[in-house]
Amino acid sequence: MMTTASRFAPPSRLLLGPGPSDVHPRVLDALSQPLVGHLDPAFLGLMDELKRRLRAVFRTENELTFAVSGTGSAGMEACLVNLLEEGDEAVVMVNGEFGRRMTDIVARCRAQPRPYEVPWGRAVEPADVEKALSQAKRPKIVALVHAETSTGAESPVAEIAPIVARSGALFVLDTVTSLGGCPVEIDAWKVDACYSGTQKCLSCPPGLAPVTFGARAREAIRDRRSKVQSWYLDVTMIEKYWGAERVYHHTAPISMSYALAEALRLVEEEGLSARFARHRRNHLSLAAGLEAFGFRFVVEPARRLWMLNSVFLPTLAPGQDEAGLRRRLLDEFGIEVGGGLGEFKGKIWRVGLMGESSRREKVLRLLSALEKVLPDAGVAVRPGSALAAAEQCA
Amino acid sequence: MMTTASRFAPPSRLLLGPGPSDVHPRVLDALSQPLVGHLDPAFLGLMDELKRRLRAVFRTENELTFAVSGTGSAGMEACLVNLLEEGDEAVVMVNGEFGRRMTDIVARCRAQPRPYEVPWGRAVEPADVEKALSQAKRPKIVALVHAETSTGAESPVAEIAPIVARSGALFVLDTVTSLGGCPVEIDAWKVDACYSGTQKCLSCPPGLAPVTFGARAREAIRDRRSKVQSWYLDVTMIEKYWGAERVYHHTAPISMSYALAEALRLVEEEGLSARFARHRRNHLSLAAGLEAFGFRFVVEPARRLWMLNSVFLPTLAPGQDEAGLRRRLLDEFGIEVGGGLGEFKGKIWRVGLMGESSRREKVLRLLSALEKVLPDAGVAVRPGSALAAAEQCA
Repeated sequence: MMTTASRFAPPSRLLLGPGPSDVHPRVLDALSQPLVGHLDPAFLGLMDELKRRLRAVFRTENELTFAVSGTGSAGMEACLVNLLEEGDEAVVMVNGEFGRRMTDIVARCRAQPRPYEVPWGRAVEPADVEKALSQAKRPKIVALVHAETSTGAESPVAEIAPIVARSGALFVLDTVTSLGGCPVEIDAWKVDACYSGTQKCLSCPPGLAPVTFGARAREAIRDRRSKVQSWYLDVTMIEKYWGAERVYHHTAPISMSYALAEALRLVEEEGLSARFARHRRNHLSLAAGLEAFGFRFVVEPARRLWMLNSVFLPTLAPGQDEAGLRRRLLDEFGIEVGGGLGEFKGKIWRVGLMGESSRREKVLRLLSALEKVLPDAGVAVRPGSALAAAEQCA
Repeated sequence: MMTTASRFAPPSRLLLGPGPSDVHPRVLDALSQPLVGHLDPAFLGLMDELKRRLRAVFRTENELTFAVSGTGSAGMEACLVNLLEEGDEAVVMVNGEFGRRMTDIVARCRAQPRPYEVPWGRAVEPADVEKALSQAKRPKIVALVHAETSTGAESPVAEIAPIVARSGALFVLDTVTSLGGCPVEIDAWKVDACYSGTQKCLSCPPGLAPVTFGARAREAIRDRRSKVQSWYLDVTMIEKYWGAERVYHHTAPISMSYALAEALRLVEEEGLSARFARHRRNHLSLAAGLEAFGFRFVVEPARRLWMLNSVFLPTLAPGQDEAGLRRRLLDEFGIEVGGGLGEFKGKIWRVGLMGESSRREKVLRLLSALEKVLPDAGVAVRPGSALAAAEQCA
């Protein structure tokens, strides 16, 4: 039955959407290394390295720091199902799609979600958290998204953290989009449980979810009255595999672990502060270019994410829409940018500059492509002006 | 901060444990292809190809056939959390570790597990299922492990299937270890929900769990009174991403999807029946060789798995143990074989011949290595006899 289909050859893409981001060749090379077993001493050594390197990017000493065998959403679910039980009250700050998702998961845990809604495109501010807490009784957790991928807003965690700490609730933080691209300070912020993803600013393919649990979170898990509702995500079992006991739980994703280790090595080589500065610089440069074209940012300047630029488009000619423009960028220039999610569907673009995608030449490549396609969609463009604006900020 | 750690270079291994198995170079090469987005038309095309190829190996027409973004255990959990609600009765046939795991997950769904225990090392026989059903009231599901990875026993699904069908319960089947290595007939057996893993006989790295749901299972899911307790594994949402709507749920594991597609292409090129014959032939050859050394099979001949050989060791000299022998194989010969799980911990070996690991030369390499290490552990060996026995069956 030699009906060999021709092998899948992915088209060449510049990934400037909300993730996955471009992956460094060294990470792709790590992915293609031959397999070892999940209990092989060499692999157990790699797991120790992963834990150590994840602690460094999370800026934590938490022993229970590892990668969940699933994507970022599995990390979100892992944090919530382990901490919550039936009837627990959970304050969830909602300023976009991912806050909503947390609320949904909280309800599936049979806990009592107390969603506090903030308009999409706005950050969650300290006063919002004060108010949300004043409306709750005795919340077990306060859950917050640091970088809302659906809107491009960054909430000021450093200012919010002391308010959560005073409440006595456990602080659960989503850093899916922020980790590795802007400061994340798990220990300094007294975050009790945090999850992230690999395919954003860590520039590793999607498939793993870095998580970290602090002492108070582990105590809460130890004191549960019921079993964690997910066997797959039950950290009381997973920690025995990642810890000294090495008790088999499930077969770890070997190749993806190679890739994550290599991606974290690249982060270390660059250094966190240099990496953050690069993300900031390229964001400012892109913002200047986009604004020169007539794009308007969804988020106010002080709360804009460096790695995810959410923008309203300039007015297009009748019959033109944002999806058509995105499709042209993809088909003719091999550039992916993201569309809107939820309330912003069809209304905005989300331009990601994450990890390896946050490079000066990539910003310029996008602006050059826009200079070519925007006029066809009825947007007046002064040749060279957006690129010049971008170069000035670079 | 140029503190570059030397890159992880995995040691060269021959993987003859219970999975992961050796991965074909074409699959490793697919893993290292550059990324595209999870909503890229090219990737959506690959997803369609994956669905089609998974249907072919599952031998099903089920529309809802896809890969869960997690390992085999996530596939197990996906089947159970979607089908079960609080109070549902679930008959679970238990003849090893993975039946136990299903029982555990059933309880976490707040359903009523009715585990039916069979001694470890024995297959589940039709009479066992008759008896289990007679002790249940009105079970919503009957769950069975086709190939028990912890014991090496294959249960005769073709004979059991009509009994489950008569009961009216949904038939949930674990084919983690069997899929791609011996006949699996989802439609002919009227299996309603089935899950597998990628790292066994499909010879793809661990990280995805192929699943398939039939019409009755989908109806049961549609008729649920409550939401699925796992957001991440909720097929009512996931099917909208894998189906025509392409609604974003979570970011699919792009690179692992490339790898699985390539692994399934290799399966198609070989053809299922040739692949099964190869697994059978190499099993018989290995069995003859191991028995010549004095290993005794845990399972009776008619119920032995071709891809997982579970054996008691010959008597070792005082001070020698199975773990020490396995470590010598690993350290001196680069060969991984598995130890026992659960009741069989420290008592048996599990020698996997799965997918790319089921090759004549690999069988002979293991037997040659054993001929060298067994005498040091006090096992009398007649030089060349085990290899000759193996060659005779090859």
